[in-house]
Amino acid sequence: MRLSEEKAREIAESLNYRWPDQTVVAVAQEYQSGKVLMVASMNKEAVIKTLTTGIVHYWSKSRKELWLKGSTSGQVQILMKFYVDCDRDSVLLIVKQALLKACHEGYHSCFHYKVTEKGIEVEEEGPKFR
Amino acid sequence: MRLSEEKAREIAESLNYRWPDQTVVAVAQEYQSGKVLMVASMNKEAVIKTLTTGIVHYWSKSRKELWLKGSTSGQVQILMKFYVDCDRDSVLLIVKQALLKACHEGYHSCFHYKVTEKGIEVEEEGPKFR
Repeated sequence: MRLSEEKAREIAESLNYRWPDQTVVAVAQEYQSGKVLMVASMNKEAVIKTLTTGIVHYWSKSRKELWLKGSTSGQVQILMKFYVDCDRDSVLLIVKQALLKACHEGYHSCFHYKVTEKGIEVEEEGPKFR
Repeated sequence: MRLSEEKAREIAESLNYRWPDQTVVAVAQEYQSGKVLMVASMNKEAVIKTLTTGIVHYWSKSRKELWLKGSTSGQVQILMKFYVDCDRDSVLLIVKQALLKACHEGYHSCFHYKVTEKGIEVEEEGPKFR
């Protein structure tokens, strides 16, 4: 999905950037599988860029700059739907993950560590909700 | 799911509480439907309580205290699975939502605001990933 610049700005202005570096928390969930891929941050610029281009941009906490996800890895995320929560401080991005590996560790999802009584185990294919 | 006190402490100690109030970001996703219900925060105590009781506890940002989700509303969340991300600063909770309304506004999910070219619309049944 893509919005006009005007509408994207209107949406972006309505959010509450109350997290560090004036950001909202962004959860990326995979279209089709429903797997939660990652949690990241978005500042106002990242929200506008994401909504106008249809390609997901985050705020890089470590580099303190706008981050086009996949700009070096090719792991681009295509925006399918965009939801806002009741507090206006978190957003849910429904995305198509281009190369099926959202995580910089080479896994499908960043949430590949599953907690069990034995400890933390790797779940290669990402977190299953069922 | 429930863990022993010892194992719960071990898991909790391994997380990176780098968000405000020394917390991790917690995403609650519904077992069965896969809907993302809400984003909240957990401090170390909340992680331990959640893992040992099997009932989801968060850190209340507004009240600055441990928060048993549903303690007043009855909207308890039963923990089915617990995932940790690659940065150890976010967790994914797969939950059964007792009364099917996770949001204090009376909706199934807090992410009931859908962004479209027309603006922000309410999606009563919560965010659909497909």
